[in-house]
Amino acid sequence: MLVYGRNVAEEYLKKVEKVRKIYLQTGFHDQNLIFLIEKTKIPVIYRDKKELDQLANGVHQGIILDVVDFSYTDYHKFIQNEDSFVVILDHIEDPHNLGAIIRTSEAADVDGIIIPKDRGVCVNATVIKTSVGAIDNIPVSLVTNLSQTIQDLKKQGFWVIGTDMENAIDYREIDYSGKIALVIGNEGSGMSRIIKESCDFIAKIPMYGKVNSLNASVACGIMIYEVVRQKRR
Amino acid sequence: MLVYGRNVAEEYLKKVEKVRKIYLQTGFHDQNLIFLIEKTKIPVIYRDKKELDQLANGVHQGIILDVVDFSYTDYHKFIQNEDSFVVILDHIEDPHNLGAIIRTSEAADVDGIIIPKDRGVCVNATVIKTSVGAIDNIPVSLVTNLSQTIQDLKKQGFWVIGTDMENAIDYREIDYSGKIALVIGNEGSGMSRIIKESCDFIAKIPMYGKVNSLNASVACGIMIYEVVRQKRR
Repeated sequence: MLVYGRNVAEEYLKKVEKVRKIYLQTGFHDQNLIFLIEKTKIPVIYRDKKELDQLANGVHQGIILDVVDFSYTDYHKFIQNEDSFVVILDHIEDPHNLGAIIRTSEAADVDGIIIPKDRGVCVNATVIKTSVGAIDNIPVSLVTNLSQTIQDLKKQGFWVIGTDMENAIDYREIDYSGKIALVIGNEGSGMSRIIKESCDFIAKIPMYGKVNSLNASVACGIMIYEVVRQKRR
Repeated sequence: MLVYGRNVAEEYLKKVEKVRKIYLQTGFHDQNLIFLIEKTKIPVIYRDKKELDQLANGVHQGIILDVVDFSYTDYHKFIQNEDSFVVILDHIEDPHNLGAIIRTSEAADVDGIIIPKDRGVCVNATVIKTSVGAIDNIPVSLVTNLSQTIQDLKKQGFWVIGTDMENAIDYREIDYSGKIALVIGNEGSGMSRIIKESCDFIAKIPMYGKVNSLNASVACGIMIYEVVRQKRR
């Protein structure tokens, strides 16, 4: 998998075992990164800007790294604590949203993130870049059937909290003690019907304007920090 | 100014006086939008995909609107209430962040947003698209000197709350009653030194992971909803 950009490169150069090789743009002159690269034995290949543009599919800032693929985690490994807190994404489509949600989750000490295999976005280079390194400090689980996973979590004692505007309770009035699974829906259509029906509570963030929704990663951030406030993590 | 995308188009077709003309891709078949357009007298021009691509500079989904330029507001017009709440952006660079912050601010009934003229991003087509229509329900002020504006706000009785990780108080422990100006810094470098020094309080959102920052629009959303919680808006 190719990842790119200076911040991402700096993060990856802290875990050199994950980096196979590095493509640098001819004339690349970030002294800090060059110093970090020279300390390793990772092969470096110089290419001109045009070739990097073709490889990167995004803003690479003169540096592209070929790294080992992201490895997903079985969610059973991160739901064992009595106070577990997981975030479930019901078909998030925008990689920037997934990256930002991973970043917030890592910052807030969420135990893990669960995403479905089909339709939604998976962990790709854009996600990794947007997560600014957080992706390596929090497990992400890829599941085949989100609905079955939620049923399984409920059997394991989780309270499942969805987010929506209709038939919902003010998010500040819900008790988030115990095992919590927070479900964030798709950017356009929200949670799917079957997932919504399996939630124990539906939370809403109060809206006082005319546009009745928030960006998915912003809404997720507000919800996560409300859970954190109550859990006093 | 050109704006594009189906959601943006739908919002603009609610305020037809702002739309000068509409470019549609040959074969455009969104029946809902076509129905809305036919109800107006706005001139429609058909063009092929290539021509729209050149006009739009982004994902246009077959529809581009030529609309009247965004008009900024003098901030003195939205700081008169005893309970005023404004958001100040200290050189936000990413238009997606500005759009998401506008969206959150509108949803939370923030009175207005203040941005500086130089360096940071201004209201452009990407910002308008990301704000999904919120931009029309909240005033945005463009100021020449952010530092002077903050001094002016302080004279008008505002408490200025910055956000940073160093020398900062937990954001939940600050009293947000009265007139509040919340300052969000640049995505990479945070608030500039001079702005930081003029803040009455510096708030931090607690971080429990290894990556010690949040996406700017997520951090702004968490801060805004904490102010809202205390103001009981």
